[in-house]
Amino acid sequence: MADQQAQAGEDTRSTGIPVLRWEEPPEGPVLVLLDQTRLPAEEDELVCTDASALVEAIRTLAVRGAPVLGIAGAYGVALAAVRGFDVEEAARALEGARPTAVNLSVGVRRALSAYRSALAGTGDTGAAATAALDAARTLHREDAEGSTRMGAHGLALLGELLPGGGHRILTHCNTGALVSGGEGTAFAVALAAHRAGQLRRLWVDETRPLLQGARLTAYEAARSGMAYTLLTDNAAGSLFAAGEVDAVLVGADRIAADGSVANKVGSYPLAVLARYHHVPFIVVAPVTTVDPHTPDGASIEVEQRPGFEVTEMMAPRGSATGAGNGIPVAPLGTRAYNPAFDVTPPELVTAIVTERGVVSPVTAQALADLCGRSPQVTTG
Amino acid sequence: MADQQAQAGEDTRSTGIPVLRWEEPPEGPVLVLLDQTRLPAEEDELVCTDASALVEAIRTLAVRGAPVLGIAGAYGVALAAVRGFDVEEAARALEGARPTAVNLSVGVRRALSAYRSALAGTGDTGAAATAALDAARTLHREDAEGSTRMGAHGLALLGELLPGGGHRILTHCNTGALVSGGEGTAFAVALAAHRAGQLRRLWVDETRPLLQGARLTAYEAARSGMAYTLLTDNAAGSLFAAGEVDAVLVGADRIAADGSVANKVGSYPLAVLARYHHVPFIVVAPVTTVDPHTPDGASIEVEQRPGFEVTEMMAPRGSATGAGNGIPVAPLGTRAYNPAFDVTPPELVTAIVTERGVVSPVTAQALADLCGRSPQVTTG
Repeated sequence: MADQQAQAGEDTRSTGIPVLRWEEPPEGPVLVLLDQTRLPAEEDELVCTDASALVEAIRTLAVRGAPVLGIAGAYGVALAAVRGFDVEEAARALEGARPTAVNLSVGVRRALSAYRSALAGTGDTGAAATAALDAARTLHREDAEGSTRMGAHGLALLGELLPGGGHRILTHCNTGALVSGGEGTAFAVALAAHRAGQLRRLWVDETRPLLQGARLTAYEAARSGMAYTLLTDNAAGSLFAAGEVDAVLVGADRIAADGSVANKVGSYPLAVLARYHHVPFIVVAPVTTVDPHTPDGASIEVEQRPGFEVTEMMAPRGSATGAGNGIPVAPLGTRAYNPAFDVTPPELVTAIVTERGVVSPVTAQALADLCGRSPQVTTG
Repeated sequence: MADQQAQAGEDTRSTGIPVLRWEEPPEGPVLVLLDQTRLPAEEDELVCTDASALVEAIRTLAVRGAPVLGIAGAYGVALAAVRGFDVEEAARALEGARPTAVNLSVGVRRALSAYRSALAGTGDTGAAATAALDAARTLHREDAEGSTRMGAHGLALLGELLPGGGHRILTHCNTGALVSGGEGTAFAVALAAHRAGQLRRLWVDETRPLLQGARLTAYEAARSGMAYTLLTDNAAGSLFAAGEVDAVLVGADRIAADGSVANKVGSYPLAVLARYHHVPFIVVAPVTTVDPHTPDGASIEVEQRPGFEVTEMMAPRGSATGAGNGIPVAPLGTRAYNPAFDVTPPELVTAIVTERGVVSPVTAQALADLCGRSPQVTTG
């Protein structure tokens, strides 16, 4: 069953959420995104007719999550190529849309590289555009297959670490079908455990300030029929103290060569809590997330986002009075510290699960070995 | 200057916030509260003409914060007595309004005890009502004086622990004039540091789900002219990792005999982070917060609050569609885990600062000695 879903590639997911799809004429060529800022209240689609629209969608988080950003970036290059825009310029704009997620850059460069090669070989921009689109489709399909493999590797790891089954898993931010060509990263592991009858409960951190856990992970968990409970990020400490967490599963936006993990802000406190309570802290991410050009955690550029995400509440509609169109919850003029990510050092990470296998303990050498070797064939 | 403010008792605070006041006829007898659910957008007053109204105000958090709950509870008993209601019944209802804060119970019993004694001695309900009101006023004044002493003791402790000055202090929830007859607990220490020119920055945790940090502490900090920055509770980990936190200062809702501290949910994760980063974690609370009848952390009853505080965003006005009159942010039917407090074990608490002095290291014996001995005269 998992294999079938992986094969579905860019079509529907197991949860039925069309996170992103390419439309050919007559509707297209366009890239259609599920507007994630509207979830869970509404399932609105956002149609990108050019790369600029996609850049804006990435900046406003209408599409977000490391793996799907790579896929979106690749389709963005293809879109510029197919529609005859300046492909190099579009690629630069897409790469710069968000700084921390390495996947975005990897996806953009992959489609750009295919475009350049075809153009150099044939001199035909049409053929080059087709090559860029093929590269995007391939990345999309690979990502879906990678999700399935991460799910399987992660499930096996949980079985080793927690032989009793009945896992109570805490997760942070959103890492399911909404961020992926397939079923996601950390969420794909929880879903694999759920399908295997081994998930007792998924604890869902709400993930302030943008509430990706409450809005998106809860939505994915509900659609998948999982037993899940939402909590404020604050309340995770009480769960650990009560012995209610068997493992923490999170995704990653960038993994440095030394195994330092940049992920949604709030991941690092969970890693510290997990260590204090002797609970495994597991990072699930495709190998494209590992950036060999970033040597360590200190070298990771962390995106600082606008303060109004903290000082204002974003209501779905109406009542907009603040600078960010939200409802002010703090006194006017309040300054906010709002990093999008934090960095967890490798010594706090029990394991990194990729589509190629598991790295544990997390060392630079083990990570380099895994990324260097060719993809291992795994039964999904 | 601090002494003058302490003397002001139930009148205005340094920040000019009338958190609670007793009104005599012709307006009264009534207890007037600042409706803290409306802050910082509006400074509305809420007039309680009987104990039931006060119980409702306590339950809806219009008045909240351990020390001021004790004062409110005492005035509530006085209100019932002065207006000729059943004083014993009012006391029971007030005591049961919220389970975790021991101060509420202590304040209610103090006024009730004064009432009973006077009634037994004189047989005159009028004299007994006056005795209850006197007890409430005395508690109010003592609390203000206690704030000043906590500020002074805490400032001295910071000077010992961090001899360089220029403190960058992280605080959680709200512990200033809004929770106190004076200038509060943890916030009073930060304010003392500010006045002494030793506060470089106050980091204010927003404190989900009810945002007491964003709404109330930021309001108090802004009014006091402090350099403060708001952050999501999640982002505290990044601050610790960056070496930007010199000390954590929090209040307490109940301290068990062994030194375990129940405080706003999210305090325990901060204590674990502080320990991991070798940063002092300091609890500031009046001795009434220490409950000798609660032997340890496991014996502390933690209030579980409604899930809609997590699953819905509370907008100040309008757009109400959820069960809690908020805007749903999670899928309908989402279950939430929403403990109001968590418990920090004594081994993670660097010091407990009270109006009688400082306990450090935190042991049952040291705490008992402090609570047992008569108040020490301290220069404010």
